[in-house]
Amino acid sequence: MGGAGKEVKRGVGLSDAQRVAWLQLIRSENVGPVTFRELINHFGSAEAALDALPALAEKSGRRIRVADRAHAEQELDALREMGGNMIALGEPDYPPWLRQIDDAPPLISFRGAAGALTEPMVAIVGSRNASVAGRKIATMLAAGLGAAGYTIVSGLARGIDAAAHEASLSSGTIAVLAGGLDRLYPEENAPLAARIVESGGAQLTEMPLGHTPRGKDFPRRNRIVSGLALGVVVVEAAQRSGTLITARSAGEQGRLVFAVPGSPLDPRAFGTNRLIRDGATLVTGADEVIEALGPIGGERPAPPEAEEDSDEREPIRDADDSDRARIIEALGPAPVEIDAIVRFTRLPPATVHLVLLELDLAGRLERHGGQRVSLV
Amino acid sequence: MGGAGKEVKRGVGLSDAQRVAWLQLIRSENVGPVTFRELINHFGSAEAALDALPALAEKSGRRIRVADRAHAEQELDALREMGGNMIALGEPDYPPWLRQIDDAPPLISFRGAAGALTEPMVAIVGSRNASVAGRKIATMLAAGLGAAGYTIVSGLARGIDAAAHEASLSSGTIAVLAGGLDRLYPEENAPLAARIVESGGAQLTEMPLGHTPRGKDFPRRNRIVSGLALGVVVVEAAQRSGTLITARSAGEQGRLVFAVPGSPLDPRAFGTNRLIRDGATLVTGADEVIEALGPIGGERPAPPEAEEDSDEREPIRDADDSDRARIIEALGPAPVEIDAIVRFTRLPPATVHLVLLELDLAGRLERHGGQRVSLV
Repeated sequence: MGGAGKEVKRGVGLSDAQRVAWLQLIRSENVGPVTFRELINHFGSAEAALDALPALAEKSGRRIRVADRAHAEQELDALREMGGNMIALGEPDYPPWLRQIDDAPPLISFRGAAGALTEPMVAIVGSRNASVAGRKIATMLAAGLGAAGYTIVSGLARGIDAAAHEASLSSGTIAVLAGGLDRLYPEENAPLAARIVESGGAQLTEMPLGHTPRGKDFPRRNRIVSGLALGVVVVEAAQRSGTLITARSAGEQGRLVFAVPGSPLDPRAFGTNRLIRDGATLVTGADEVIEALGPIGGERPAPPEAEEDSDEREPIRDADDSDRARIIEALGPAPVEIDAIVRFTRLPPATVHLVLLELDLAGRLERHGGQRVSLV
Repeated sequence: MGGAGKEVKRGVGLSDAQRVAWLQLIRSENVGPVTFRELINHFGSAEAALDALPALAEKSGRRIRVADRAHAEQELDALREMGGNMIALGEPDYPPWLRQIDDAPPLISFRGAAGALTEPMVAIVGSRNASVAGRKIATMLAAGLGAAGYTIVSGLARGIDAAAHEASLSSGTIAVLAGGLDRLYPEENAPLAARIVESGGAQLTEMPLGHTPRGKDFPRRNRIVSGLALGVVVVEAAQRSGTLITARSAGEQGRLVFAVPGSPLDPRAFGTNRLIRDGATLVTGADEVIEALGPIGGERPAPPEAEEDSDEREPIRDADDSDRARIIEALGPAPVEIDAIVRFTRLPPATVHLVLLELDLAGRLERHGGQRVSLV
């Protein structure tokens, strides 16, 4: 990762100038977490990537909006004024498990206790229109896991989420938002969100201040809920629901997925029963979750080690139009592995990555899990 | 199996004289299904075993009651007078899956359609004090499996059993009793039992006429419920219950075990949720059971082939007191494999089996699964 990468390894904080550059980069058009990481890999720092950004996108035929420095500074200042802060991937307070996922947010905004972000966490999620029984089970689970030392992560939604936060206020809980920290959703849970912070927990988001959550932001947020946690417990979930997206992303992230069973006659159990059929661990209480998380004498699993980045980066060589054409030829609407594109085109990997970055920034590329990409 | 064994292979019926001899043997004191099989193995026929029986038991120091011929004839006659009959292990109408279990009853008494006994079966079992929801699920499962061509086996108990029988009257259902065919339990289900027979199903038991079921007869009966079936579906079950014994015996018999999940707050789901945690397949409807039973294009699994018995039997040599002492020395209160006893004593296997038979008949031996035995 070069400059930024070395800091990641040491777990040292960014300077505020660097933080603002990171913020500019991630707030720029078509720059998501994976593109951000690719840019840092190629250019060595956020500053260098910002300089290269306009030209890169234009090579694939589009101008993109690069976030300007003044706006980024304003966002950081405003966040701090409301008692929040931002943590960058690799800084000591960055949640250790979240850091391991492919599309970990480069920067998270939070309000509350920074120390809460590095505790071992379990996510409890479920239906918004939960039954009384479901809320009771969420309460039991959150209290039991809290007593065992786990911080409870959830999404501040009605129903299961709210019950899980409520029951873990005293032991520690984190609400992950789909919008900005000043755009709590649903509004009715704003008092709960305030109590989460007052009681030593935190609210957390990757979204900018002022961002009102839209439908597509919720599944995106859900990857952070599961990414923060060692495991995800699903309490009630209908056949098709956002909760199941969280469970699926947890599985893809290699996290343990637990589900609470229910009667086949209860539609709110369709999703959880399905998860169990598909391999999730059936749990009926906190003890079973604790047992699965720490099989050896109750020891908590250690956060995974940071990957050793190679300090040797390939020299970047500009791609020419013929390279670009070959790479585009190798791409289609179906996701294909980047390695396969390298083999097919016989171009240097760095060149392939660079052209993919161009396409990505121009909004012509979609990135999928497993280092796969497709044309939009 | 010698004489009887050859008939088993051909699937030919016994003569009535042979049937009465089989009945005498199985109704004799201390002769259970496994001992019965051992006796036939050693002596070649029920008649020969009956002749040897008194002397064998006396060698281990006890006189046992050998059932007399007249009583056996009376039982068979009485059964036929009430419209029933007996089928011996290996006869064409003997249930093909039941035949494969270690302790398959040598003779079963039944009332109803003999043809029903060879249909592919699924057992549905569960709590006597079932919930309305549980009975509804049992009804759905039985109707769905019946429509797919499976005969439903259950235990005629209140609750889940009764619901499963009721819902499969038209498609075929078999009630396995813990007592004699003239001692239906519970009495309130006698009308249901009658309708089972009227509608082309059957009542079935290994117990003699006039035998009122005692507590220990129910788990013993449960092995037949699971043994008859390709799979067992457990609908509701408390933490400790006879239903779980059926599920365990099904697992030991290599049958598929299915369980219907329920809320952790419902005590009637404790047992089924536990089963799922322990490896049973979670099912919420008949389709899932059907899918698991016949993965290839809906084809039903064929009944397992009868084992090829070797026609060469070891010559039987009488055991002497020193042999007996060595074998008893090798035995203890903990179950040990018969093969281990053969290795330890270095005696011919036939001698070991003979002495074990003596001890068994004298009530001094207990037989366990996996060809293991212990001293009582």
